[in-house]
Amino acid sequence: MGKARIGDVAALAGVSVATVSNVLNRPEKVTPPLVDRVRAAIDELQYVPHMPARQLRSGRSATIGISVLNAANPFFGEIVSAAELAAVGRDLSVMVGSSHESPTSQDKYLDVFEQFRFAGIIVTPVSQDLERLRRLHARGIPVVLVDQEDPTRVLPSVSGDHLAGGRLGGEHLVAAGCTRVTFVAGPLAVPQIAERLQGCEEAVGDHAGVELTVHSGPGMDIDLGRVAGEEILRLPASRRPDGVFAANDMQAIGIMQAFLAAGLRVPEDVRMLGYDDIAFAAVAAVPLTSIRQPSREIGRTAATLLMDPAAAQDVPAARVRYTPELVVRESTAGAGVARVGSPLPAG
Amino acid sequence: MGKARIGDVAALAGVSVATVSNVLNRPEKVTPPLVDRVRAAIDELQYVPHMPARQLRSGRSATIGISVLNAANPFFGEIVSAAELAAVGRDLSVMVGSSHESPTSQDKYLDVFEQFRFAGIIVTPVSQDLERLRRLHARGIPVVLVDQEDPTRVLPSVSGDHLAGGRLGGEHLVAAGCTRVTFVAGPLAVPQIAERLQGCEEAVGDHAGVELTVHSGPGMDIDLGRVAGEEILRLPASRRPDGVFAANDMQAIGIMQAFLAAGLRVPEDVRMLGYDDIAFAAVAAVPLTSIRQPSREIGRTAATLLMDPAAAQDVPAARVRYTPELVVRESTAGAGVARVGSPLPAG
Repeated sequence: MGKARIGDVAALAGVSVATVSNVLNRPEKVTPPLVDRVRAAIDELQYVPHMPARQLRSGRSATIGISVLNAANPFFGEIVSAAELAAVGRDLSVMVGSSHESPTSQDKYLDVFEQFRFAGIIVTPVSQDLERLRRLHARGIPVVLVDQEDPTRVLPSVSGDHLAGGRLGGEHLVAAGCTRVTFVAGPLAVPQIAERLQGCEEAVGDHAGVELTVHSGPGMDIDLGRVAGEEILRLPASRRPDGVFAANDMQAIGIMQAFLAAGLRVPEDVRMLGYDDIAFAAVAAVPLTSIRQPSREIGRTAATLLMDPAAAQDVPAARVRYTPELVVRESTAGAGVARVGSPLPAG
Repeated sequence: MGKARIGDVAALAGVSVATVSNVLNRPEKVTPPLVDRVRAAIDELQYVPHMPARQLRSGRSATIGISVLNAANPFFGEIVSAAELAAVGRDLSVMVGSSHESPTSQDKYLDVFEQFRFAGIIVTPVSQDLERLRRLHARGIPVVLVDQEDPTRVLPSVSGDHLAGGRLGGEHLVAAGCTRVTFVAGPLAVPQIAERLQGCEEAVGDHAGVELTVHSGPGMDIDLGRVAGEEILRLPASRRPDGVFAANDMQAIGIMQAFLAAGLRVPEDVRMLGYDDIAFAAVAAVPLTSIRQPSREIGRTAATLLMDPAAAQDVPAARVRYTPELVVRESTAGAGVARVGSPLPAG
């Protein structure tokens, strides 16, 4: 039991070892009846293909590991899908873990990626501590950052310009006439969030009479957005914001849900702005103004960089930075703001 | 280079082998200065922890593999998040792959899970061919199906009752007065889609004068929903449906986007119904009626079953089946239908 070797399988199936190997690794290259025969033999002998041994010979497994903040956020979902599409062309699989902004979780995923000798790692770091990633890179394991950059230019990166995006959003709310702006952040240890906030602060700081408050929280999903929205609703009306800039669209949608349920009107009572421009933003109850990041392009480029051996050697490392784009929709429309970019009638 | 062993790391760091092992596997149990010292030694010696060897000793790695149709669909995203939450309590990591309804992709993920000796597998199968999964289970690898059942009761499963859900949706559209219903399916090889369609057919078939057409497509995301919506819009007005039942909410949202952009009114011109009740359904441009499945409960229960050694031995296997719930919102409201369950004002 469990002691069968690949040669035993080949002998029982009456095929070569190479054919068994093909059935295990490239079944599409083997005719279906042969696949069935080999699988029956594998089954009968309870043969377990020994990846670790094969791996040590070839050095690396045919798998890319991705660690993102939250794969259920369509922004990261699109990045992952695009990376999958690029990887499948090179016969690589993609495995994804969600760190949920936790350094411990990220470390666990990196443990798995490293110990199984994955072919490469794409990661949205949970903090500015990139030491472990740089060490992996130094050992020859390809690493590409997404949604964040390495200030030392050791690690290649593909990301949006979060400072510019934060500025765009802040300027837009001020231009729309907001005087009490609340930036609803997730965990401020996440550098891209801190940068978006900094950009917003710079934009708002240029305007006397506009007040900026920060509402930080433990995470950035719809549920936590709803909680943030309810907290804002409990403020006395005089202290409530007339403009809300959420650090991502997931939060913005949760906040909007809380506001609308309480009878607040968007944009009449409060203008709202998200970040990422996920597909749901355009079809939200009130179509959501957002800062667009090209998620698919980011995922595709990250995978391409990862699989390009030349890119891994470049010093300084490749740094692909996308300029974000303001997409104005109903949620901030009104006095002083022309509504463009929305294919939808007003909600 | 690369020949260092764990004892060399321990000697250089001046700690025990057990401490090095803790730093590798349970760093939270080691003080930060010690972690730093051990990591510096690992770095200096370019030591690569040898998971395969350790794994063969312990039998299984501390990782659960999940293969779902599309991790970027919040329905599966929630299942995965809940499974992660349940697994982290047992010190297990969760790695996710998206099969995108492709048997080849699913097979590749199963190869990875099997070859790396993952502790268990949660899978939304792409088809009714469960033979390989039953073989893995027979070899002692825990396997739990989500969103689909094993008719032979060999594999445990956690899913909704798709036939009942399809019936609920079909009956609802008929009760709302629809006479030309289009069921927008994804790939009909996916059993849960075929079952939802069958339920809808049963419900509509009971009513003379109601016509049901099926619109099938290669996938079930927002983009493909938009494509399906545009195809429906190209039909002559007399052949256009007055009720659309989409096989999941992602598709429904894409279809709605196409309809609204073309000036069609929902629900006045066409009533729309999705499936899953993802969080976005309630905050869609027109809040979307949907068939609710308890995604978090499904993910949590699947992980719990997977980690329960007793459940793995049960014959017949555990089968947890949730009764779906119709959540009526604006997208199907109007004559004959009371609108309930929506916290939002009309879009």
